[in-house]
Amino acid sequence: MTLPPVGPVPPALPAPDHAGRIARLAAALAAAEIDVALVAQHVDLFYFTGSVPSATLAVTAEGRYALGVTKGLGRARAESTLPAETIVALRSPKELPGLVASLGVAAPARIGLEQDVLPMALGARLLKGFPGAAAADVSGIVRGQRARKDAAELVAMREAAARLASTFDRAESILRPGLTELEVAAELERHMRLAGHQGIVRMRKFNGELFYGALGTGRSTAAEQAFDGPVGVAGLYAAVPQLCGPFTIAPEDTFLLDLVFGVGGYLVDASRLYTFGPPPERVRRAHAVALEIQDEAAAALVPGAVPETIYRAALARAEAAGLSAEFMGWGPNQVRFLGHGVGLEIDELPVIAQGFTTPLEAGMTIALEPKFFFGPEAAAGLENTFLVKDAGPAECLIPEGHGIRVL
Amino acid sequence: MTLPPVGPVPPALPAPDHAGRIARLAAALAAAEIDVALVAQHVDLFYFTGSVPSATLAVTAEGRYALGVTKGLGRARAESTLPAETIVALRSPKELPGLVASLGVAAPARIGLEQDVLPMALGARLLKGFPGAAAADVSGIVRGQRARKDAAELVAMREAAARLASTFDRAESILRPGLTELEVAAELERHMRLAGHQGIVRMRKFNGELFYGALGTGRSTAAEQAFDGPVGVAGLYAAVPQLCGPFTIAPEDTFLLDLVFGVGGYLVDASRLYTFGPPPERVRRAHAVALEIQDEAAAALVPGAVPETIYRAALARAEAAGLSAEFMGWGPNQVRFLGHGVGLEIDELPVIAQGFTTPLEAGMTIALEPKFFFGPEAAAGLENTFLVKDAGPAECLIPEGHGIRVL
Repeated sequence: MTLPPVGPVPPALPAPDHAGRIARLAAALAAAEIDVALVAQHVDLFYFTGSVPSATLAVTAEGRYALGVTKGLGRARAESTLPAETIVALRSPKELPGLVASLGVAAPARIGLEQDVLPMALGARLLKGFPGAAAADVSGIVRGQRARKDAAELVAMREAAARLASTFDRAESILRPGLTELEVAAELERHMRLAGHQGIVRMRKFNGELFYGALGTGRSTAAEQAFDGPVGVAGLYAAVPQLCGPFTIAPEDTFLLDLVFGVGGYLVDASRLYTFGPPPERVRRAHAVALEIQDEAAAALVPGAVPETIYRAALARAEAAGLSAEFMGWGPNQVRFLGHGVGLEIDELPVIAQGFTTPLEAGMTIALEPKFFFGPEAAAGLENTFLVKDAGPAECLIPEGHGIRVL
Repeated sequence: MTLPPVGPVPPALPAPDHAGRIARLAAALAAAEIDVALVAQHVDLFYFTGSVPSATLAVTAEGRYALGVTKGLGRARAESTLPAETIVALRSPKELPGLVASLGVAAPARIGLEQDVLPMALGARLLKGFPGAAAADVSGIVRGQRARKDAAELVAMREAAARLASTFDRAESILRPGLTELEVAAELERHMRLAGHQGIVRMRKFNGELFYGALGTGRSTAAEQAFDGPVGVAGLYAAVPQLCGPFTIAPEDTFLLDLVFGVGGYLVDASRLYTFGPPPERVRRAHAVALEIQDEAAAALVPGAVPETIYRAALARAEAAGLSAEFMGWGPNQVRFLGHGVGLEIDELPVIAQGFTTPLEAGMTIALEPKFFFGPEAAAGLENTFLVKDAGPAECLIPEGHGIRVL
């Protein structure tokens, strides 16, 4: 068992400025007239504190904060760059009103909660401790802030990107007709883990889950599925339609490898297409259109650009090529977006789709995934994770390999 | 790449009686005076329908039902044993009130929601369609029903159990000083996947997640963590404290392997202890106490038994052995339970702990995990998943290997 040559496992990651992140949240709370936010979801907790204890982070509009921990106190203090005195033990969440009062907010009128993820029962229990307070939704504030990555986050994403590239190379050396999709999956999962993949891929959406991504022959990637993405997944089981199906690779198959690599919490998302021998003409042509769509969109990913404009341009190119029926999913799998934000979660903001009009900002990281599906017979296209720069076209974080890989 | 000899991958699983499960839910709704339940969580959807579409299942107290699907309709009809005409397309969840009205409930007074998992924003949007209706929590009803496994569920769990046993055997052939915990994890993950592991392990609790389980030397299994279990997990990253740490195995280490195997959605949970050469005396002795606790508890897992009584007996045995400080977690990791229900989720009912007084029933599947932790130096004890029978002691679903495995 040897480690792939992509740097140490786990990689050394810089210490983020958690206090700075909390200060930006507080400013947004003040602007939204929310007295205090209670941050409870593990991914948001990690972003603001550097740890994932059983805890609630209270942040006031005036910028005072405390992390109240019911389990994992010592570890939180060791992992966070926040001052130790701001990380305190709570015997129970019932002590939260006291903690909030200690921050100078004795009777909050509006309490911000992550209402897109916080379960109803838990939300009701939290609010019970603050009689007379109304709940506000801070999901948009938190997700909006997290969409712009800082320097520490980009280090982790670049580490993940290099390791994902090594996984695509590894696939090139093992893929061959006769292997089952599961055998390919198991081998690449092993490669990714030895390269420092964190294992779990997080998705924010209710019921959302993702096991490394999706891979397989056209029989898998055209399989109907409920996931909010273009790639079908047959899955081994109806209960868990994830990653791969039960199919054996045939010489005439296209093999789509759409993987998510995670380092230090941070995900990058990319896909590559493999064929055994020269690809069929329609696949070659569709892949060229996908590359054009990607390059045009990447050039348009600049601060101030409007996501739906970029999506419409991509759609127009697919239509002009006569490929609108095959674009972004086969049959009932077809989705109406070109890309999505990615970071600590696979479904971050912004979304490159109709209806998304908030202008892009520098520091956003976006997976663009122009793909075409010819039913169970073939797929084409690719995916890469891009970084919106201060000026100029977005930077592709994933090195090399944008063409079809002919084995 | 060869498959381990534990039966076909994926295994053939029997078709469950989804309509029967829905009828039992309806009876419970009637008893609780809830007019209609809207089931939306993916695991509950799978239990009642056999599929995981983007969908909501509406079930009335009178036993009428319909699955309204926004994505994955064809697949849901193919995977479910429910009649095709009960699985219908919805353009949007806004059409749910009409679907419920079509079941004979035009103006429900009480609507049952899975309030332990349903996000606040989603719950509020659902209720908006039913003016004047009050929300009731059906989490307890659904979780209570799911705690008793039927024949089809037990087939999947037995398949998972055999495959987990093969994983413990595989570990015996690869574990040796000098390997890192991550190398062991990657190799066993590959083994499990080739043996048909579904990959994802589901946990119901908010923020709950589990990547295959936990494994490692005492340095990992004593690491402080926030997970609601006795085994510490150092993790590779603060963001994702899962499965293994960064440590290298030394000859004097104990190695605890606590894994969850999933087949067709169904999980079994077990752990084994490995040493390199004869175990230290305190480990040998603590392991013997753990075996006594397990055997006594398994004999007590009968219909009508009270969980907290079983927990207290285990605690008394640990105390009598002078091991109460080491029992069920080191330092801040110590938890106050002996076992937990397991099935489609790793944290099912019942819990074998103080305060749990609802009597056991036949068909419940419970992981008992008496374990002892001697800080970073060593661990002892084991875990097995048991089935409560109509009479007599509970059946251990995991074959063999309850002693320390001396390598």
